[in-house]
Amino acid sequence: MQPAPIFKTIGVISRPRRANLSAVVPELLEWLEARGLRVLYDEETASALPKPSKGLSRQLLADQAEILLVLGGDGTLLAAARFAASRCIPVLPINMGSLGFLTSFTVDELYPALEETLAGRSSMSQRVMIQIEHLRDATVLDQQHVLNDAVVNKSALARMIELELSIDGDFVCRYRADGLVLATPTGSTAYSLSAGGPIVHPSFDGMIITPICSHALTQRPIVVPADRVISIELKSEVADVYLTLDGQAGHALRTADRIEVQRSPSRVHLIRNPKLGYFGVLRQKLHWGER
Amino acid sequence: MQPAPIFKTIGVISRPRRANLSAVVPELLEWLEARGLRVLYDEETASALPKPSKGLSRQLLADQAEILLVLGGDGTLLAAARFAASRCIPVLPINMGSLGFLTSFTVDELYPALEETLAGRSSMSQRVMIQIEHLRDATVLDQQHVLNDAVVNKSALARMIELELSIDGDFVCRYRADGLVLATPTGSTAYSLSAGGPIVHPSFDGMIITPICSHALTQRPIVVPADRVISIELKSEVADVYLTLDGQAGHALRTADRIEVQRSPSRVHLIRNPKLGYFGVLRQKLHWGER
Amino acid sequence: MQPAPIFKTIGVISRPRRANLSAVVPELLEWLEARGLRVLYDEETASALPKPSKGLSRQLLADQAEILLVLGGDGTLLAAARFAASRCIPVLPINMGSLGFLTSFTVDELYPALEETLAGRSSMSQRVMIQIEHLRDATVLDQQHVLNDAVVNKSALARMIELELSIDGDFVCRYRADGLVLATPTGSTAYSLSAGGPIVHPSFDGMIITPICSHALTQRPIVVPADRVISIELKSEVADVYLTLDGQAGHALRTADRIEVQRSPSRVHLIRNPKLGYFGVLRQKLHWGER
Amino acid sequence: MQPAPIFKTIGVISRPRRANLSAVVPELLEWLEARGLRVLYDEETASALPKPSKGLSRQLLADQAEILLVLGGDGTLLAAARFAASRCIPVLPINMGSLGFLTSFTVDELYPALEETLAGRSSMSQRVMIQIEHLRDATVLDQQHVLNDAVVNKSALARMIELELSIDGDFVCRYRADGLVLATPTGSTAYSLSAGGPIVHPSFDGMIITPICSHALTQRPIVVPADRVISIELKSEVADVYLTLDGQAGHALRTADRIEVQRSPSRVHLIRNPKLGYFGVLRQKLHWGER
Repeated sequence: MQPAPIFKTIGVISRPRRANLSAVVPELLEWLEARGLRVLYDEETASALPKPSKGLSRQLLADQAEILLVLGGDGTLLAAARFAASRCIPVLPINMGSLGFLTSFTVDELYPALEETLAGRSSMSQRVMIQIEHLRDATVLDQQHVLNDAVVNKSALARMIELELSIDGDFVCRYRADGLVLATPTGSTAYSLSAGGPIVHPSFDGMIITPICSHALTQRPIVVPADRVISIELKSEVADVYLTLDGQAGHALRTADRIEVQRSPSRVHLIRNPKLGYFGVLRQKLHWGER
Repeated sequence: MQPAPIFKTIGVISRPRRANLSAVVPELLEWLEARGLRVLYDEETASALPKPSKGLSRQLLADQAEILLVLGGDGTLLAAARFAASRCIPVLPINMGSLGFLTSFTVDELYPALEETLAGRSSMSQRVMIQIEHLRDATVLDQQHVLNDAVVNKSALARMIELELSIDGDFVCRYRADGLVLATPTGSTAYSLSAGGPIVHPSFDGMIITPICSHALTQRPIVVPADRVISIELKSEVADVYLTLDGQAGHALRTADRIEVQRSPSRVHLIRNPKLGYFGVLRQKLHWGER
Repeated sequence: MQPAPIFKTIGVISRPRRANLSAVVPELLEWLEARGLRVLYDEETASALPKPSKGLSRQLLADQAEILLVLGGDGTLLAAARFAASRCIPVLPINMGSLGFLTSFTVDELYPALEETLAGRSSMSQRVMIQIEHLRDATVLDQQHVLNDAVVNKSALARMIELELSIDGDFVCRYRADGLVLATPTGSTAYSLSAGGPIVHPSFDGMIITPICSHALTQRPIVVPADRVISIELKSEVADVYLTLDGQAGHALRTADRIEVQRSPSRVHLIRNPKLGYFGVLRQKLHWGER
Repeated sequence: MQPAPIFKTIGVISRPRRANLSAVVPELLEWLEARGLRVLYDEETASALPKPSKGLSRQLLADQAEILLVLGGDGTLLAAARFAASRCIPVLPINMGSLGFLTSFTVDELYPALEETLAGRSSMSQRVMIQIEHLRDATVLDQQHVLNDAVVNKSALARMIELELSIDGDFVCRYRADGLVLATPTGSTAYSLSAGGPIVHPSFDGMIITPICSHALTQRPIVVPADRVISIELKSEVADVYLTLDGQAGHALRTADRIEVQRSPSRVHLIRNPKLGYFGVLRQKLHWGER
């Protein structure tokens, strides 16, 4: 007889339009229900079922589930993390295509990983999130929590923009650049890396400020502790500057708008693949050991 | 008695809204006319005259002048170069603010530089231009000549775009990036440098292909001889991808549009400041010798 | 009447062969003694006195002083820090030439800075040091504490070397490179920066691993928390590989030698120039705000 | 009946201590002699023969052969190129291990490639070499021709060195760095790339100057036309600075020694693998298309 799973309600979130979902989802839901779990699923998961069914909104799902199962890539996981941010529940990431920086289990490892997780035997990597506030004058227009990064950048036609960086209220410098990436350690291997940033170990409690194509060649990426408050102010008078959160939600910024960034109380509890540690993923993704 | 100047018609092009123009332009036009020159000027120059006067369009001006005098910064010079591209006439660049990579004479050097130039004693740096064609199916939608660069990039909200590079019809690679810079040697110290490109001596007959924030860290800038034809095709299906020419004119690109880049028959004959060679400008602009 | 200084014994360490020392040192020693301080000085300081006098060894001096006054540049300060590592005493850094990353007071600020310091009114920046052990088989050949960095690199004639990196015993990757920099946050603006590393805020408790000219272009700098143990093993069979500590002491390494790096219990208490914060120094040294 | 080969004398140069040579060499020599060719081979090739035999010196061999067959990697090819520099004979490169940037044929392609080459049907890539002169006072101490690069660098224990760069006698800048790479386009994908240099198409007639860990972050790689004369002077007074030529020969440099670099009259005629063009090799070696 199997022991009762330590979770009662599981939420399943899937990447939209992923062809191989219909080969996985029906059997998966049966498997989960056979173990006595209450299964909640989003609309993308529902669309992979043979019979018409209606999924939950991801927010509703994240509000009720005790664990999230993500079928997709890093983008799907980032979306799931945002919805579950305030609840700090575990997330089991299964990549439905190629290996992701965040989604290190393959489809073949789905059931073994679920067995371990439901039996409470899996280990977790706590991932820091950062809180992003968009301020105009003294008003907070929006507040969100991101697992990878917040990006301020100019539109395609605009010339470079000017951004002023302060840390704990002290002026640091003014950038003339295409934009700026504010990344968590988790996000250090995403867009920040393409913009020239370092790899920052996910157990590190800090943030990375990486300018995008800075006019000043000496304005290199800066790593700061997570207990600081970073403030970015848009100084230039160009149209079409945007703030993008985890590559998904976006806001238009106006001159003198500020972005305040600080440690989020939320963390993502990412279930680890015991066969492939953090640096194991990097070795594969970045072809280390080869040129 | 002064010798007759070797040019009869001089065109004056000024940077818009430059406060110090009104202190320079009236005396300058008198000085030029006193030397028997026919002086053409654009609307920006006209606006710096004490009496209302109407300037010529820059294109008309560039079609008739035998020499161009540019009062402004690098951006004004790039604009002048585009209008004068087909005529290969000399350009005398005076910076009205801080030292530019292209505009190496100061306002204080204006009259001595004019004396030397009109007496035929100044030396020139021939600067290669590249020809940019925007193709859709087999149709050329636009053809232009640039002195610095052509840039393909995504809008602020879009995720990375996919671009395919071919040289002389041979596939080179596919980029997943924010965009791509195609620069002349002159443009190698402009945006391409901020994106990680090398400094390429302006006497060099070649082009630089610099990816902007490429996802693949090994996709480094490529320098190719000017006798090659470079082709860039937009492969991804995202909205809001643009082609920008010398930071000024822009076009929206659609999936499958192609950009063909090759050596332009046009060259800019940039009058050299004898006190400040090419590397002298770089030493100042890039703080060489200091950290 | 002046209050009694909070320190009784001050050690003065000077940069060797610095011409302007003889204009500063005699008056300085008088000034200090007039305030009732016991003054210890090293041989370099002694050589700047008008009458022949013998200085103390820096180690003896650092063992007895309650505060160190460093007259020199960053190199002199690094040397002083090593001698004083175990004692965590304050260090007042005066640059005798140009502004240093660590030596932010000028000679003109010497007496005001001393007044503030002796009155206990100066503020301090605690700087993390890292402990470096050189192991052969199971034997520790040397153990030192550095404020900037430990560098493993090949000699001029050797081809690239192979180094294996582990963190907490887990294999990370093998480098084929010229060498590797292991830097503290303080050292992040020194050699690590030249090798492509990020700027890491000195209040950050971590270390930076920056490969020097890695053959694999994707092996980027890695930032790790200070509670990890980093191990580097020399795998290749080339002669002439060296370990350098804070640019000063060096050791020859043999194949299979290991370097273990971890947080040092020692910290340097660097007296801050209230007129020039951490980023103020960077703005000047790196010409931020300019290109 | 086979047509007579267009070459009468072939030289075979092998990489030392390559285990698989003995499986290839005996049959190869028979095959070549059966086609009526006079076969010259070096000592490394001789050591792979079953019966004791004595090989020629590589210089003697290169002086007499009409074509060189290189069995090895890029290093072996660079050595062969140096010996054959003055004679501009074709070189057929077979890699005995993994794909090289220069050695693009595999062992399996050895006989088909030989058939095509001997029948005069293979195409060739002309590769520019550069001439390196080491001068002390007005005396040329050494002159050599390199296919990849000349590297000036400091020893492991020395601090940074100072080098002054001039082009055609005009001062460019002074570097404080670990060293400097002077590369051909062919060498742009070797050490220069690891030091941050661009990829330069081999049909390009120019040179690349890439500083190694320059203290000044704005001293970026410089590409100059091949008709310029580059001069590097060692300014600092440190011991143990070396000049390395194609990673093989080395010289100690003294303060005030100069290195003069210019286009070599020699070129290498590298036989091309029709299945794998220049960018095909780069796609494989640099994992383009992947991250």
